[in-house]
Amino acid sequence: MRNVEIYHRLFDKYLSENAFHQAPQELYEPVNYILNLGGKRLRPLLVLMGTDLFDAPIEKALPAAFAVEVFHNFTLLHDDIMDEAPLRRGKPTVHARYGVNTGILSGDVMLILAYQYLSQIESPDVRLKLMPIFNKMAIEVCEGQQYDMNFERRNDVTIEAYIQMIALKTAVLIAAAFQMGALIGGASEEDSLKLYTFGRNLGIAFQIQDDILDTFGDPEKFGKKVGGDIVQNKKTYLVLKTYQLANEAQHADLQHLMNTPTENENEKIAAVKSIFQAVNVRGHAETLMYDFLKKSFDALESIPLSSARKNSLKDWANDLMIRQV
Amino acid sequence: MRNVEIYHRLFDKYLSENAFHQAPQELYEPVNYILNLGGKRLRPLLVLMGTDLFDAPIEKALPAAFAVEVFHNFTLLHDDIMDEAPLRRGKPTVHARYGVNTGILSGDVMLILAYQYLSQIESPDVRLKLMPIFNKMAIEVCEGQQYDMNFERRNDVTIEAYIQMIALKTAVLIAAAFQMGALIGGASEEDSLKLYTFGRNLGIAFQIQDDILDTFGDPEKFGKKVGGDIVQNKKTYLVLKTYQLANEAQHADLQHLMNTPTENENEKIAAVKSIFQAVNVRGHAETLMYDFLKKSFDALESIPLSSARKNSLKDWANDLMIRQV
Repeated sequence: MRNVEIYHRLFDKYLSENAFHQAPQELYEPVNYILNLGGKRLRPLLVLMGTDLFDAPIEKALPAAFAVEVFHNFTLLHDDIMDEAPLRRGKPTVHARYGVNTGILSGDVMLILAYQYLSQIESPDVRLKLMPIFNKMAIEVCEGQQYDMNFERRNDVTIEAYIQMIALKTAVLIAAAFQMGALIGGASEEDSLKLYTFGRNLGIAFQIQDDILDTFGDPEKFGKKVGGDIVQNKKTYLVLKTYQLANEAQHADLQHLMNTPTENENEKIAAVKSIFQAVNVRGHAETLMYDFLKKSFDALESIPLSSARKNSLKDWANDLMIRQV
Repeated sequence: MRNVEIYHRLFDKYLSENAFHQAPQELYEPVNYILNLGGKRLRPLLVLMGTDLFDAPIEKALPAAFAVEVFHNFTLLHDDIMDEAPLRRGKPTVHARYGVNTGILSGDVMLILAYQYLSQIESPDVRLKLMPIFNKMAIEVCEGQQYDMNFERRNDVTIEAYIQMIALKTAVLIAAAFQMGALIGGASEEDSLKLYTFGRNLGIAFQIQDDILDTFGDPEKFGKKVGGDIVQNKKTYLVLKTYQLANEAQHADLQHLMNTPTENENEKIAAVKSIFQAVNVRGHAETLMYDFLKKSFDALESIPLSSARKNSLKDWANDLMIRQV
């Protein structure tokens, strides 16, 4: 695997060369705006990595990598409208800056633009293989978002249903990014599916790690405000598992805190955190996270590639998990 | 060309067989709801007609016809949110019934479902040809909607810009439906493009006719409330052309009426209509409509098909224009 910096530079160049300058400006300016708010560019890099893993020129994968990034930002744009979020990455969200109607319509065109870039993959054979993968992934991401909204109103969410929700909302895009990259790189259907499984489990592990860090992370290193999930009464793994582990008093306390609108944010964060710590939910979360990471690495191991290649991908994944802590 | 009733029956059967019963129900129920509000099913029929015109079994075109109908309803769903419309076809709009967030997300999944059905076209060759046509059309429909929203806030809309807007917002979908149908039917690229041109000009003629009928139509036959465009101060062809034809007093009167919120609907409709009549704008609109209809028929004529086939398509088009009056 090449240096991740090379992927980054290549993708950033493609991104800036593919800014949307066409009319009507009112439609395309918000597209450029959200695409340039920054972010880690993680998902497009996974496409390039998947291609590189099978020794093909990564330039071939750039339109699909761009499609994945445009799709991801489309979901962020529409999710921000649904969540009425004022800020993304410290800047005004698209609907806050340009209005809700523009937000809806610019999001719509982004979803179509993602397909348009996917159609630019040179090989017709590969293009035909990518289409159903992208369709299935995109539908699942919508389903995941719907489950996430449903869960806000429900008090009977199981841990199993929660894992299924984050798999749909977050992990399948990571999985499909790897799989599409592999197919562009010339991988067999079988190997591309193994890389999908690698990505899916890695994505779930990432999200559990994100849940942990949202509460226990280092404020200096974590991108968002630590404790944000608690303030928003989000039913994360930490909450659902704590309900299972808690004694009656802890259960009642947590339930009360979760069903009360937040008045003093720091007090609430401290109170919920102390229940989490009393039942050692962090330990359970880390065990689950490592279970998914292991499943992920097992899938990778089963692909007939050199150990050096697989190890460098594992190092990258481990590094990404640790860097967040 | 077969009896249009056969197309209708075949499509309605496919539509009901392809209702969405999967989970989460909160996401898919609104999709079924809007698809079953009725409507003329005009656009999917055009796909079937295009295929039939080249003598291929129309069953092959059903997934693309369905994709076109799902796409069209996706645009209606999101447009209704943007317009804050409470009713569609006399029933509550999706966002009025299920909430705005569900409306956004169910619309998103419909756009993806359209692509998924397009991917079900059996021939890989044809599938590869349909993708860029659908992408271009879908992007243009979004651009048309953006221009439409822009025009609401502008007072310098030219007739040329208005025609370009309705071409994008309405006509390209009709054009692409015919073109895709032709390609599924085995038409050459050249002939499919001619059918696209036929559809595009026909679509513009339809929309001008719709503008005329919205003001001058028979309330018994016209589906919507006659005078709706006037009440909403819409800058239709009738308004834009009247500004060109009017004397100073008429111009000032119309401008005043258009910039005043409607108090008494019937009074306003009558006042605007009398200015329209004074300058005979209806005659100008009909001339323009027939110009586009002629362009449309000229494109059809240039396709090497039997006269019988082309004449029956023209009869259908003429019939559709007249039936609305």
